[in-house]
Amino acid sequence: MQADASRRTQRVIPGAGPTEEDRRLYSALGANAAKGVAVVTAHHGVWDNAVTVTDYLSVSYDPPTLLVSLYSLSRMAETVAEAGRWGLSVLAADQGAVADALGEQGSPLVGLLGQIPHFRRDPDGPALIDGALAWFELRTANTVEAATHTLVVGEVVAMGTASSPLARPLIRFRSEYLR
Amino acid sequence: MQADASRRTQRVIPGAGPTEEDRRLYSALGANAAKGVAVVTAHHGVWDNAVTVTDYLSVSYDPPTLLVSLYSLSRMAETVAEAGRWGLSVLAADQGAVADALGEQGSPLVGLLGQIPHFRRDPDGPALIDGALAWFELRTANTVEAATHTLVVGEVVAMGTASSPLARPLIRFRSEYLR
Repeated sequence: MQADASRRTQRVIPGAGPTEEDRRLYSALGANAAKGVAVVTAHHGVWDNAVTVTDYLSVSYDPPTLLVSLYSLSRMAETVAEAGRWGLSVLAADQGAVADALGEQGSPLVGLLGQIPHFRRDPDGPALIDGALAWFELRTANTVEAATHTLVVGEVVAMGTASSPLARPLIRFRSEYLR
Repeated sequence: MQADASRRTQRVIPGAGPTEEDRRLYSALGANAAKGVAVVTAHHGVWDNAVTVTDYLSVSYDPPTLLVSLYSLSRMAETVAEAGRWGLSVLAADQGAVADALGEQGSPLVGLLGQIPHFRRDPDGPALIDGALAWFELRTANTVEAATHTLVVGEVVAMGTASSPLARPLIRFRSEYLR
């Protein structure tokens, strides 16, 4: 069935490669994909690192396996690589302030989690965010470079919830939290 | 800061590997990650294949690059591999019926898109879903096996919207569409 809905925007990327305008349009169009907001955490040496992410997905139920996409040159990609273990905490609708606090790439690691309620399953493991709809503790199984990002594939070591079953998700859509 | 929120569920996967109960719990916990619903399409030979997905993400703005996770043994993974080109259409809130219609893995390919309004940018390219908040036409750049799934990494060839700027997203959360 062919319909006649107007195509309001259409852009073909030139053979020579994407222009600045293409990158802007891609960014704007990509923001139409609604995404549950989560926090990736890793503990290395005396440091806790944590960053807000929306680019993660499940790749298998057996064994339970997740991946997160991290900018390859980011401090978080480095911490995860060094630690070999990491956490993913899926945030609830009332945790926008947590997402905002951990959304700044350049924040000092000292005191990063100071104001953010968290816990650890394993004293040497990653911090996990209190109130998360779901949390997963993962061991890196594989890493894959994809364009500017590193896909970190992790096998689930432990998992749980830290919120009420009635809690709602924090969702990012068009660069805002969905109300 | 350590808080005392109760951890309602916690499960450590045994060293010998996940049990059936672990897989069920992982599935239930994973459903807490809210996800924008999309449709992957590919055209090969005389056939259009299409399947509803929630596991996709952007891996780069430069060049614009997306990936989708497909069950490795699925017909869709095969069609995408054969075609080398595919489409991703991000659905709007009123397109739950489209998502449902394309959510059955075993549906016959004959007539699969017969009742679903779609268009093509390229006559030989993938179908794209009318009314989508955003659509992307991609060329496979790389594929990666991750547990039971294949991560198909694609560079964007063309992109656009097929909906009103006021359209809202179709979101899956805890195995239902979010209202």
